[in-house]
Amino acid sequence: MKIADYSGVKANEEVSGVLMRVLIGAEEGAPNFVMRLFEVKSGCSTPFHTHNWEHEVFILSGQGKVKNEKEEETPITNGDFVFVAPNEKHCFINDGSDTLRFICLIPLVK
Amino acid sequence: MKIADYSGVKANEEVSGVLMRVLIGAEEGAPNFVMRLFEVKSGCSTPFHTHNWEHEVFILSGQGKVKNEKEEETPITNGDFVFVAPNEKHCFINDGSDTLRFICLIPLVK
Repeated sequence: MKIADYSGVKANEEVSGVLMRVLIGAEEGAPNFVMRLFEVKSGCSTPFHTHNWEHEVFILSGQGKVKNEKEEETPITNGDFVFVAPNEKHCFINDGSDTLRFICLIPLVK
Repeated sequence: MKIADYSGVKANEEVSGVLMRVLIGAEEGAPNFVMRLFEVKSGCSTPFHTHNWEHEVFILSGQGKVKNEKEEETPITNGDFVFVAPNEKHCFINDGSDTLRFICLIPLVK
């Protein structure tokens, strides 16, 4: 068992204004999927991209939008969840004034 | 893509004082793992049990404790994450005055 506060985990800047922490992954012995926590600064966005694995996302705080492959944008806030299917183009945009924080899980690459 | 507020998802009472919602699972097309949200009422607990799959947990709100297989209890609160390995005995106890809310992911049974 591992129990810790996310803020003590080392963060990497994935792209400008986007911090990512791996909370639970291979190092913790996770056999199937990986929990990461993202912080997107005000005015910043994750890349508008696609890949052949899914995202399971839960929004913790902040205000933003999810853009889908048709470039339609849907508002997201605390308490919302987002399922992005494999090969579905997407990004997470922070158009609010506070940091947008969310959990994003992906399958473990074995 | 599916985007929704968790509070709109139907909740089931798993045991007395413990509500569970399946946010992202087979119905949404999730191929590998399932996101659930638990609400444990003040003074209540999930069962002290074990199973051969893992939990990846993130605490959203409230105050509580995680009990491990040695019956040691560790405090948990908003911002903590918990990895429970397969076959590790565990439960989540709400010893605070507010509802304990957390996300708990498990592998998809195929």
